[in-house]
Amino acid sequence: MSSSSTESKKVPVGVSARHIHLTQEHVELLFGAGESLTEFKPLSQPGQFAANETVAVYGPKGSFPKVRILGPVRKATQLEVSRTDAFSLGLQPPLRESGSIDDTPGIRIVGPAGEVNVDKGVIVAARHIHFHTSDAVRWGITDKQLLRVRVGGERGVVFEQVLARVSDQFALDMHIDTDEGNASGANTGDFGEIIE
Amino acid sequence: MSSSSTESKKVPVGVSARHIHLTQEHVELLFGAGESLTEFKPLSQPGQFAANETVAVYGPKGSFPKVRILGPVRKATQLEVSRTDAFSLGLQPPLRESGSIDDTPGIRIVGPAGEVNVDKGVIVAARHIHFHTSDAVRWGITDKQLLRVRVGGERGVVFEQVLARVSDQFALDMHIDTDEGNASGANTGDFGEIIE
Repeated sequence: MSSSSTESKKVPVGVSARHIHLTQEHVELLFGAGESLTEFKPLSQPGQFAANETVAVYGPKGSFPKVRILGPVRKATQLEVSRTDAFSLGLQPPLRESGSIDDTPGIRIVGPAGEVNVDKGVIVAARHIHFHTSDAVRWGITDKQLLRVRVGGERGVVFEQVLARVSDQFALDMHIDTDEGNASGANTGDFGEIIE
Repeated sequence: MSSSSTESKKVPVGVSARHIHLTQEHVELLFGAGESLTEFKPLSQPGQFAANETVAVYGPKGSFPKVRILGPVRKATQLEVSRTDAFSLGLQPPLRESGSIDDTPGIRIVGPAGEVNVDKGVIVAARHIHFHTSDAVRWGITDKQLLRVRVGGERGVVFEQVLARVSDQFALDMHIDTDEGNASGANTGDFGEIIE
């Protein structure tokens, strides 16, 4: 009886503040040999968490003294900032999907036990939606598809080129950054709607 | 021969950084008796200019040391900030059309000769397009109409609820703030397109 074309495709929105992912090697250089990240609170994606630990980051122009680390550790260190943040740091990072860090600016990262200079890894994260495979099948959405999503109220926008990422490891959630949240008036916990 | 429905409705985009409008009384309190604003450079709207003069503004949480004044002087003092700026200041100003400042937060303003505490006047400016009357007639747009405008490239968005303002004193220009510019990847000098 049901038709995927008539069901409203509502997606919870999460507004991501600047944050960093670290390798285990960098965790130990910044926090001490043998140290590991500890969980502050879980994130929407299964197994992901905000860590208790934070670091400072220094760009050529400005710095942020307390950037939250998201765990678990990854294969590459990656700092995700808004375009507003990038201006403050004095960097011009490209818009990228998470994990795609070739030809991106580096950054100096300082922790309580040491510091690391990475020669790449700073990106502005491309907005995207995590779909569990079952959501994607129900709505006829395929991995890597670009979607249009209406978000916000009196300041509503339609975000175009929203990247679909599909996995049975994902929970349904749309991730935008603070610039996108502020420009659309959207807050974490609001809902966006995928439109034609 | 021509049809308004087939002509592409391209509009130049201007990204407005935080700025302030002052009354003559406040100019004199901040810069000295008998002082007036001096022009640094003209703006897109006829007769409007960025002044050489700047002020500092102090909110309950943070401050900005150098906020550009836009002239000429107005009947009411008004500080226009992005939502990002508002968080830094510790204020929650509403989204408003310029000039609509009832029930908005106040701010402390400091100049070289004195300071002023206004009890209202801080807004997040609602995005809008200035149309010369001739542009509006040609495109069939009326004053106060709400429009949809596509802006930006790899990070393109459609801004909804874009307020049309029509006057024979205006030059065609779309004004968005820095959050909206950063979220859409648009810069001053880019073009938006009014869509159906």
